[in-house]
Amino acid sequence: MGGNSFGTVFKITTWGESHGEAVGVVIDGCPSNLDLSNKDVQKELDRRRPGQGKGSSPRKERDRVEILSGIFDGKTTGTPISLLIRNEDVDSSPYEEWKEVFRPGQADFTYQAKYGLRDYRGGGRASARETAGRVAAGAVAKKILEKENIKIIAYTIELGGIRVGKRDYSEIYRNVLLCPDGETAIAMAKKIEEVKTEGDSLGGIVEILVRGCPAGLGEPVFDKLEGDFAKALISIGAVRGVEVGAGFAVARMLGSQCNDPIGPKGFDKNDAGGILGGISDGADIVLRVAVKPIPSISLEQKTVDQARRPVPLKIRGRHDVSAIPRINPVCEAMVALVLVDHLVRQRILDSFSRK
Amino acid sequence: MGGNSFGTVFKITTWGESHGEAVGVVIDGCPSNLDLSNKDVQKELDRRRPGQGKGSSPRKERDRVEILSGIFDGKTTGTPISLLIRNEDVDSSPYEEWKEVFRPGQADFTYQAKYGLRDYRGGGRASARETAGRVAAGAVAKKILEKENIKIIAYTIELGGIRVGKRDYSEIYRNVLLCPDGETAIAMAKKIEEVKTEGDSLGGIVEILVRGCPAGLGEPVFDKLEGDFAKALISIGAVRGVEVGAGFAVARMLGSQCNDPIGPKGFDKNDAGGILGGISDGADIVLRVAVKPIPSISLEQKTVDQARRPVPLKIRGRHDVSAIPRINPVCEAMVALVLVDHLVRQRILDSFSRK
Amino acid sequence: MGGNSFGTVFKITTWGESHGEAVGVVIDGCPSNLDLSNKDVQKELDRRRPGQGKGSSPRKERDRVEILSGIFDGKTTGTPISLLIRNEDVDSSPYEEWKEVFRPGQADFTYQAKYGLRDYRGGGRASARETAGRVAAGAVAKKILEKENIKIIAYTIELGGIRVGKRDYSEIYRNVLLCPDGETAIAMAKKIEEVKTEGDSLGGIVEILVRGCPAGLGEPVFDKLEGDFAKALISIGAVRGVEVGAGFAVARMLGSQCNDPIGPKGFDKNDAGGILGGISDGADIVLRVAVKPIPSISLEQKTVDQARRPVPLKIRGRHDVSAIPRINPVCEAMVALVLVDHLVRQRILDSFSRK
Amino acid sequence: MGGNSFGTVFKITTWGESHGEAVGVVIDGCPSNLDLSNKDVQKELDRRRPGQGKGSSPRKERDRVEILSGIFDGKTTGTPISLLIRNEDVDSSPYEEWKEVFRPGQADFTYQAKYGLRDYRGGGRASARETAGRVAAGAVAKKILEKENIKIIAYTIELGGIRVGKRDYSEIYRNVLLCPDGETAIAMAKKIEEVKTEGDSLGGIVEILVRGCPAGLGEPVFDKLEGDFAKALISIGAVRGVEVGAGFAVARMLGSQCNDPIGPKGFDKNDAGGILGGISDGADIVLRVAVKPIPSISLEQKTVDQARRPVPLKIRGRHDVSAIPRINPVCEAMVALVLVDHLVRQRILDSFSRK
Repeated sequence: MGGNSFGTVFKITTWGESHGEAVGVVIDGCPSNLDLSNKDVQKELDRRRPGQGKGSSPRKERDRVEILSGIFDGKTTGTPISLLIRNEDVDSSPYEEWKEVFRPGQADFTYQAKYGLRDYRGGGRASARETAGRVAAGAVAKKILEKENIKIIAYTIELGGIRVGKRDYSEIYRNVLLCPDGETAIAMAKKIEEVKTEGDSLGGIVEILVRGCPAGLGEPVFDKLEGDFAKALISIGAVRGVEVGAGFAVARMLGSQCNDPIGPKGFDKNDAGGILGGISDGADIVLRVAVKPIPSISLEQKTVDQARRPVPLKIRGRHDVSAIPRINPVCEAMVALVLVDHLVRQRILDSFSRK
Repeated sequence: MGGNSFGTVFKITTWGESHGEAVGVVIDGCPSNLDLSNKDVQKELDRRRPGQGKGSSPRKERDRVEILSGIFDGKTTGTPISLLIRNEDVDSSPYEEWKEVFRPGQADFTYQAKYGLRDYRGGGRASARETAGRVAAGAVAKKILEKENIKIIAYTIELGGIRVGKRDYSEIYRNVLLCPDGETAIAMAKKIEEVKTEGDSLGGIVEILVRGCPAGLGEPVFDKLEGDFAKALISIGAVRGVEVGAGFAVARMLGSQCNDPIGPKGFDKNDAGGILGGISDGADIVLRVAVKPIPSISLEQKTVDQARRPVPLKIRGRHDVSAIPRINPVCEAMVALVLVDHLVRQRILDSFSRK
Repeated sequence: MGGNSFGTVFKITTWGESHGEAVGVVIDGCPSNLDLSNKDVQKELDRRRPGQGKGSSPRKERDRVEILSGIFDGKTTGTPISLLIRNEDVDSSPYEEWKEVFRPGQADFTYQAKYGLRDYRGGGRASARETAGRVAAGAVAKKILEKENIKIIAYTIELGGIRVGKRDYSEIYRNVLLCPDGETAIAMAKKIEEVKTEGDSLGGIVEILVRGCPAGLGEPVFDKLEGDFAKALISIGAVRGVEVGAGFAVARMLGSQCNDPIGPKGFDKNDAGGILGGISDGADIVLRVAVKPIPSISLEQKTVDQARRPVPLKIRGRHDVSAIPRINPVCEAMVALVLVDHLVRQRILDSFSRK
Repeated sequence: MGGNSFGTVFKITTWGESHGEAVGVVIDGCPSNLDLSNKDVQKELDRRRPGQGKGSSPRKERDRVEILSGIFDGKTTGTPISLLIRNEDVDSSPYEEWKEVFRPGQADFTYQAKYGLRDYRGGGRASARETAGRVAAGAVAKKILEKENIKIIAYTIELGGIRVGKRDYSEIYRNVLLCPDGETAIAMAKKIEEVKTEGDSLGGIVEILVRGCPAGLGEPVFDKLEGDFAKALISIGAVRGVEVGAGFAVARMLGSQCNDPIGPKGFDKNDAGGILGGISDGADIVLRVAVKPIPSISLEQKTVDQARRPVPLKIRGRHDVSAIPRINPVCEAMVALVLVDHLVRQRILDSFSRK
C-alpha cells in the first residue's frame, strides 16, 4: 500500500487533502550544511499559486509555508525537513451537492472503487492542491541543483491546439503562459478567454529543458533517468503522455536519421534528448508532457451517482481553464527531485571510483 | 546505486551481460502454492527469441531457462525463484575492433562516463539480451494474472511510418509482425526488406491492451498505475515515449471532448485509457510506446573513440532492422509485472476493508 | 541517506527536533475505512508523557496531537495520515552553556562527526522527544491489531539491579513503574529516590509480551519477525541489547533443553519466544530489551569541547533517573508497528493462496 | 512479501534451498572498477564450509562459486554481480521419512503455517546452507572495506557454558573453534566431543569486533548502525539475542558507570561499543550474539505430524554439534554488508558537505 513517497536517497513523502487542515511534505535524505530559508521555498510556492495565468483558478490561496524541522541557524541539519502549508479560503459547500456523484474525467469513481469511501471535498487527495507539497520539496531540490549549476525550465509549447513557432527562452517569463514565443502566447491567451466563456477547458503540451546536467546520471536497467522522469511527470494529475528527445517522432525515423552523430566536441544533434541507455550524456535534457484539459467544466455532462443512477452534472465553482501554466512549476519540481536523487546516487559511484 | 530491481511486493532483480556467462532474474515475493513449470517460462522466452519477425536478428539463441529455486513438486514455495538462461552462440570477436569507439545511438558513451569502464562485448548490460530476464519473470507474473482473468496483448500499430487501418485482434498472431491489420502487415514487411537492403533500420509504435483489469489498482499519488507503466515501458531500451488512452491527442481536445461520460453500465468511451487519477477504472487499459530504430546500422556513421578522435564507423554483424516485433513480448512482460505488483498491493487493502 | 522511515507496507516517517517547532509523523499505507479519532492517538501519547513514573522528567509537555490529513468523517481514507505535536514548555537556555561540549553517553559527538553541525538544543533529533511520533503512529497500528485481537504489553522486569520475583500481569498498571511484581515495584521506587539524590541514573530491563499473534508472520530470510523487532527496539535511544524467548540463556542450554517439544495442542514450553525460523508460531511472543541509564546526570563528568579541550561537565536541568517506564509505551509502539507491517504482508500471501 | 533482500544502496538478494539445484546471490549497487576475482569469494566460502571445526557437519560440500555477471577483465563493472553455488553431495532420502513431521526447534511448523507447503528436504530455504549466498556477498563487501582499512573478526567467547578467560586475538586462527583463548579452546573441544557422544548439541556466544571504522556511519532514527547490525545478525538462523558494547550489563550500571568519559584523544573506555546515538564514534565496534544449540539432535524428541498426531522423533543424518564456529564467518559477512551499506550512505553526505 502507500504510494505517497518519491525518491530513493533524497526521498519525499507528501500528505494532505484539498479541503483538509493542511497539505505538506517531509523530506528525508537532504544533505546537511545547506543554506535554506523559508523564502527559498515560498518563492516556488508563489509560482504555483492560483491566479498565475489567464486561465487560472480564482481561489485565493496564500500558500504560506512553515518549516517545522530539519533547519537550524539557517542551515539544513541532515534530519528530516517537514514543510506545512495550511489550507485557507476553503469552502466545501459546493461539493455537498455532488458528494454522491462521479464527476467525469476525475478520480471520484476510482477512489470510491479503491478505498470504499472518499473525501469528496474539492477532490480530496486527488486535487491538484496536493502538488503544493511537491513544489515545496522541489524548491529544496533546486537549491542543491543550483550549487551544481543545473537549471530546469518548463515552458508551454502548445495550448488549445496552438503550437509555438519558435523557442525564445528569454521570452518565457515575459508572459503569464510561460510560452517561449510571445506572439503565440497572445493567441493562446485569446483562445483561453474564448473557451472560458463557453464553460469548457483546454489541454496543451509542456516542454521541460534541463541545462548543465553532467553525463553519468541514471541507473540501468530499471531506474533509468528517463524512466524516473516519466514516472515523476505522469504522476502529475493531468499528464497523459511523456516523451524524451525526439519522442514519438522516432517511430517515423530511419536509424541513420535518429542516431546522433558524435564529434570531438560532443553530439552533432540531440534527438536522444540528453539521455542514452538510461544515463545522461551531458547534452541538454529535453522532455515533453501532454496535459489534458481540466475535467471540471461548467457545461452539462452525463454521469451517474454511487447507486449508478444517471445524473446530469453541471459543475459550478472556481476552476482553471487549463492546468497550464500552473502545472509548469510542478513539472520543474518533479524533474528537480529526480535529478537530485540521481545526482546523489551517482555521487556514491564517483566517490568509490575516485579512490 | 543499483537500479536492477523492479516492483515493490512482487519484486524482480535481473542480472547479466550480453556476452557474459548467462543472464537471469530472481523473483522475490511470488505467492506460494502456484503451479509453475519450466514450460510456462520457456513459452514466453520463445516468443522473445531472435528470428521471430522478418526484421529480426539471425543470432541463434536457444534461450533455455533453468529454474534453480523456489519451486517444489511443481508449485511455488513462496521463496525466491531464480531463473537462469545461459548465453550460447556468442561471438565477441566483432566487438574487439570497436572496443574503444562510441557507437552512435548506443549506451557506449554513457556507460563509460558513468562507470569508468564497460563490457563492450555485444553492448554488455545495455544489450536487449537483458530483457530475457524480464520476459522470464513476466511469464510468472502472467500465470498469476491468468488466474484473475487479466489478459495483456502488445501489437504493432505503426512501423516505418506505416500505420494500421484497423485493429482486428484475431489477426495479431497470424502475422510475424504482430500487427492487427493483415494488409498493413504485408506493407510493413515489404518496408523492412527495403530498409534491410539499404543497411538502415526502422522505428514504430506498439500498443498494449489490458483486458479484465478490475477497478482499484494503482497507488496515488506517486505510484499511480500509469506512472509505473510508464517507468516500466520506458526502461526498455528502444522506447522514447509513452502515452495512456488518448495520450498526446489530449493536448488538442476540449474538456467536453476529453472527459469520458459515465452511464449506468460504465464509461461511454475510453479516452482515459482505463485509468483515472492513477487508479484503474475497470475499462480496458490502453498504452502506447514509441520505439526508436535499432541504432546498429551498417551505413557509415560519424563518431569518436575514447580519446575523442574522429572515427568513421561501419557496424558489421547480426542486427535486427527493427526492435518490433521482438519488443512486443517484452512490453507485455513489463505490463504484467506492474499489474501483479499493484494487484498484490490492492489485495492488502481489500483484505482489511472486508473485515 | 535518510533513515527516518520504518516499515514496508505500513510505513511511517517521523520528523522533528526536541526544541524545534514540533515533532510529528506521516503514516503511509494505513488501510481505509478504519475508525480513528484524535482520542485514540492522544491516549497513547499521554502514557509516554513526562511525569508518568517516580523517576520521570518534570518537563510539562502536554503533547496534544493534531490530525492533519487522512481522516474523513471519523474514518481513515487510505491516504497518508499526518500527525503533528507542537513543542511546548521549551526552554533552550540551559543548552547554550554547553553548546560546544560533547556530553558523555549522548549523540553530541557523533552527530557533529556525521553532519558537520548539530542542533544542540535539548539533544535535537537525538532526544527521546522524537519517540512521540513513534507512539502516535503506534496508536494507529494498535487500532488495527485490536481488531485482530492481538495485544501487546511492555513491563519492567529489572530496574537498578532489582529483578522481579514473579510476573503477575494484573499488577502492571497498579504501579507507576509498570512492574508485574508489586513488592519489587516498591523496592525499585525506593532505589530511584536514592539514586536521584545522588544525581545519578539507573538502567533496567523491559520485557514485551505479544498475545494473540497468529502463526505465519515474518518474512525469511532477512525480514524475519525477530529481526524487525530487534531493529525496531534497538532504534530506541537507550536500548543496548535485544533477545527473543530464552535469549542469551540459550548459550548455556543443550539442544535437548532448548528445543520446545510439540504436542497435539501446541508447544509444551516457549523458549523459542513464539518465533521459529523467523516466523511466528502462534505462541506468545516474548522479547526483552536492555535499557541503559539516562546519560544526563548531575554528577561531574570528564569530557571535551569541539576543539578537543578538556571540560568538566555538570549537567543541570530536568532529567529522568531512568528511561523506564516512559520507554515502555515506546517499546509497545515499535512492536505494534512491526506486527502490523508483517500482518499486512502475510495478508497478501493468504489472499492469493486462498484462491 | 519477499524478505530475501538486504541493504539499501549495496543491496543483496539471496535465493536457493538446501537440496535444490543451487544457492546464490545477486549484488546490486557494487561500485565499478573494483578488483574482484573468483578467489576472493572462494576464500570466504571455504571458511564457512562444513568440516571447519570439531563440532561441524561431515557433509562434503565443495561450495564452488561461479561468477556469472558484473565482472569484466577482473574488475567490477557497476552492473549486478550474480554468484552461483551448485548444491553437490545432496542426499534427500533421509528427509522422506519425516516429511510430514515437524522437527522441534526448526522452521518446519512455521513454514507450513505461512506458505501452506514446504520443501522438507534438508530444511529447504530455512537451512543454514542459505548462508552460503550471504558469505559470498560478504566477501565482496569485505573487498571494499579492506580498501578503507576496516577489519572485522568474529570469535567464540563462550561455548557449552565455557567462557573465555582472555581475548588474545592472535590466538583466534590457531584453533578451529576461533577462540581467542587457547586453553579455553581445548576445554570447549572436549565438551563438544562429550556432547556429540550423547547425541545432543551446544550453544554459545560469538563476539564480533570491527576495527578501523570511521566515526559518522549510521542513519538515525530508524536505520541506526546497531539496529542494522541487530537485524542482520538475528537474521542468522541460530541467533536469539544481540547486544552492543556493554549490552545487557547496562541494566545494572549507574549512569556514572555506563557513560564513557571523553578525553582529548578519544573515549576513556568503550562500554558504548563504538556506537552513540546510532552513529559510529570511531572506537572499536563490539557486538555479541547468543547462538542456540543446533536443533537437529539424535536424542528422541516429542513432536507431532501435520495431522497433529504425536510422533516420537529420532533424527539421523549428518549434523553439527554447534553452529559455532561455522556461524562466525557468516556473522562477519553480515557485519560487512551493513558496514558497506552505511559507508556508501555516509559517502553521499560527505560528498555534498565537502562542496
